Amino acid sequence: MLKQVPIGVSARHIHVSKEHIEILFGAGYELKVLKDLSQPGQYAAEETVAVIGPKGKFDKVRILGPARSQTQLEISRTDAFSLGINPPVRESGQIEGTPGIKVVGPQGEVDIEQGVIIAARHIHLHTSDAKAWGIRDKQQLRVKLSGERPLIFLDVLARVSDQYALDMHIDTDEGNAAGVKTGDSAEILD
Amino acid sequence: MLKQVPIGVSARHIHVSKEHIEILFGAGYELKVLKDLSQPGQYAAEETVAVIGPKGKFDKVRILGPARSQTQLEISRTDAFSLGINPPVRESGQIEGTPGIKVVGPQGEVDIEQGVIIAARHIHLHTSDAKAWGIRDKQQLRVKLSGERPLIFLDVLARVSDQYALDMHIDTDEGNAAGVKTGDSAEILD
Repeated sequence: MLKQVPIGVSARHIHVSKEHIEILFGAGYELKVLKDLSQPGQYAAEETVAVIGPKGKFDKVRILGPARSQTQLEISRTDAFSLGINPPVRESGQIEGTPGIKVVGPQGEVDIEQGVIIAARHIHLHTSDAKAWGIRDKQQLRVKLSGERPLIFLDVLARVSDQYALDMHIDTDEGNAAGVKTGDSAEILD
Repeated sequence: MLKQVPIGVSARHIHVSKEHIEILFGAGYELKVLKDLSQPGQYAAEETVAVIGPKGKFDKVRILGPARSQTQLEISRTDAFSLGINPPVRESGQIEGTPGIKVVGPQGEVDIEQGVIIAARHIHLHTSDAKAWGIRDKQQLRVKLSGERPLIFLDVLARVSDQYALDMHIDTDEGNAAGVKTGDSAEILD
């Protein structure tokens, strides 16, 4: 059976805690939805922030909503060189011991002590997809991308939930290395 | 037999024709050697140029010497987005129909009509390596990189010559996607 998965190439973005949203945008501020994302309930917000590292900065980093319990900036290795920081490759939420950064909004700024990661590539599967394909949560998959520069990603993490929609998330370095863009397809080999 | 190959991650760089060196740096100018590269006779020059695209520019792009018959700028897809151009993935020297760019030196500038490529990943093999491993010139190889983000590159071009030293050349997007750096090793699978 062909196990085909749509690819989403994630540009740098930030998840922000409720507390930090109020510091950056003002007391009681609520994010506005710009565009729904592939995962149910997740959205790109209208709001952006600046992030400032020791060597460089990015002026307009998109906030993805809704608010999370911890602020987390997700960048590529290329971005990390530009900023002058050295974050590890991590699963979302695993920010213990990661570098911090300065985040600047229109109403205030905050120096987060940790929370910058390079997101580990992963595939969101709905429980029904996982069952049909015999894939378990946390399984490491081999995934073939047949773009302009074909390759097989090893150790791609499966994340299974009835809250998820089928989608493979890679970052811009990975998308560019494979010569693929959002909406292209990947194939799970095993 | 383990077919291990050192990895060289190439940052953006430019090869310049003798005619363009004289326009950019002055009549009779000769490049100065900063550092020898892995391939015999090739070197990073002390000289850099600026390259200016429709959307952005890079101020210090390293010249690799010696002079070539055609000027050729090699960048990553990430760089291409920054510059605002859309070069294809090509073998070195195959610049027919590729985008041009403005190149600026201390003494002059030149608008090249074509010559910007994203270099196709490849492995230089000395004739003796190729013979020992049963690899032919132009063969497409599968190559495993076991860095922080393990993957297998498919369709990696073998380039065999008694003028070459064993080395795999990938660009910064590919190096970052795999979590490897220059001096790390890759393994040819077949």
